[in-house]
Amino acid sequence: MNTLLLDSGEVDENARMADVVPAIEEAFEAYERGNAQMPPKSYIDLPQYNGDFRSMPSYLDTGEWDAAGVKWVNVHPDNPDDHGLPTVLGTMIYSDPETAFPLAIMDGTALTMKRTGAAAAVATDYLAVEDATSLGIVGAGVQSYTQLEAISEVRPIEEVVVSDLDEERVERFVETFGDRFDVRAGSISEAGHCDVLSTVTPVEEPIVGPEDVGERTHVNAIGADAEGKHELADDLLLEATIVIDDHEQCTHSGEVNVPYGEGVLSDDDIYGEIGQLVVGDLEGRTDGTGVTVFDSTGLAIQDVAAAHVAYENATESDDGYAFGMIETDGQ
Amino acid sequence: MNTLLLDSGEVDENARMADVVPAIEEAFEAYERGNAQMPPKSYIDLPQYNGDFRSMPSYLDTGEWDAAGVKWVNVHPDNPDDHGLPTVLGTMIYSDPETAFPLAIMDGTALTMKRTGAAAAVATDYLAVEDATSLGIVGAGVQSYTQLEAISEVRPIEEVVVSDLDEERVERFVETFGDRFDVRAGSISEAGHCDVLSTVTPVEEPIVGPEDVGERTHVNAIGADAEGKHELADDLLLEATIVIDDHEQCTHSGEVNVPYGEGVLSDDDIYGEIGQLVVGDLEGRTDGTGVTVFDSTGLAIQDVAAAHVAYENATESDDGYAFGMIETDGQ
Repeated sequence: MNTLLLDSGEVDENARMADVVPAIEEAFEAYERGNAQMPPKSYIDLPQYNGDFRSMPSYLDTGEWDAAGVKWVNVHPDNPDDHGLPTVLGTMIYSDPETAFPLAIMDGTALTMKRTGAAAAVATDYLAVEDATSLGIVGAGVQSYTQLEAISEVRPIEEVVVSDLDEERVERFVETFGDRFDVRAGSISEAGHCDVLSTVTPVEEPIVGPEDVGERTHVNAIGADAEGKHELADDLLLEATIVIDDHEQCTHSGEVNVPYGEGVLSDDDIYGEIGQLVVGDLEGRTDGTGVTVFDSTGLAIQDVAAAHVAYENATESDDGYAFGMIETDGQ
Repeated sequence: MNTLLLDSGEVDENARMADVVPAIEEAFEAYERGNAQMPPKSYIDLPQYNGDFRSMPSYLDTGEWDAAGVKWVNVHPDNPDDHGLPTVLGTMIYSDPETAFPLAIMDGTALTMKRTGAAAAVATDYLAVEDATSLGIVGAGVQSYTQLEAISEVRPIEEVVVSDLDEERVERFVETFGDRFDVRAGSISEAGHCDVLSTVTPVEEPIVGPEDVGERTHVNAIGADAEGKHELADDLLLEATIVIDDHEQCTHSGEVNVPYGEGVLSDDDIYGEIGQLVVGDLEGRTDGTGVTVFDSTGLAIQDVAAAHVAYENATESDDGYAFGMIETDGQ
């Protein structure tokens, strides 16, 4: 019996957005219904290297399929300058829950981008105006690409406004998508006045205020991933309908963590978790809804759900490298 | 940049006992000195499959080298009968702590056997009589092989008595080692009257009593790995000098967990942790020491230390398969 190895290109190819978005929606549903296990992330802090490791194990059962695995991931901000490596490097082990056999080992970095985009798409599907055709993107780094790829699966996006201080990044983004969308560079406010806005920056101080978004814009707040980081001004958050992915993660390290920690924003200001919208316990956007914000921190079940898609598609296409890691002659 | 893949045979070959035993000793020392990080194991329980997953991340710094990684491992007792697979299947991701780059991914099952044997050897080195030449083994399953391999690194073992109800297992063991040692089948009591005894069975009720061991036998109690399991009778434990690998793990799921939970055995009956012997805070065997017991549950730092050895040796021998999992053109 072999373990399938998928490199970043093969993950990118096989974790097809059209499949990942519904898988992530099913993962949110399983989590909401109590059909998932997601122990808290374990951290290893290495101040001597200005970095850390996180281990993210999880299991989910959608009723149609179940999946288990662990993502081993890190944040080493000095990597690009000091080592020519990405800040975040992930490795995913995807296992058969029934036997624990490691079905696949795959690049977790490409996987993270896919499942993060897909989560924004699920939220966008419930919270953006039905006829949304424009998408603003603030921050044209590696995570911005899958925002457009995923969100265009749930809304007929035509116009894209991308905002970044780094002109090269903007150019690369425009070049990548210019033939499929009407993409142009613009200010934060121009991006924010689109029907949907995704913020994917590493800023610590807010860069999007209430005047920067439209009256019914849906905002996917993706960038904040650690205590002390946020992209949206407090008064934008307080006016908006806020949906989170997970209470513990969001109040600890998500978009709301700073105002929540300061007492500016409380549980009363949080509308609910995305899973509650998916299962129908809470309504998505209605005629009376104004600005909405999805606070996405990224859950371990999203990684397992995306890995499931990558593995199933790769197996079907006979893609990847079959590695005989384990002796399975019984014993 | 490539990630080195090592299958079970390559792990077996490269995690050479002569190197693993000192690496495990260094790991115990680093842990004792506070130079290791080992978050509690995270469990995912899957009663529907009569199984579970455990994620074991850790980091250690010996001063000479440091290492980080995670082992993803399981216990699925129905695997052999229902699926022709081992009960325990492990996968280890071994990472560079400085950059988090996944240096190697390797079979964690072979690795576990190696590091478990090596831990027994370290304890034997501190606790067995200096001129120990005989080793008893109770339970001739997969874990028994590395007991002999490892312990013979620290003592000049000549005579081996192996005890198991399954004659085929005994035969296989004798065949494997018959040319290097004087190996014979024997009763539990014959095994226990050797200078060193290793118990490596999955029993839930004790099978070794005080009358079954010699006056100065050192016992490595390896088998107990879950709440409710133990191999040694309470009165044997109470008379012995008990050394544990980790207080939390041992009292929760190690050899002492049952009498500890029942209040038959308390912290006063535990001599100390193996790390205290390694750093010299506690004396090992002296002339006055009688029976000693090492309660080994297996620590995540042992896996990382053994993975370090396997990776370094494999790299030197140009062994394994180089896998380009991650795009490293920077971004």
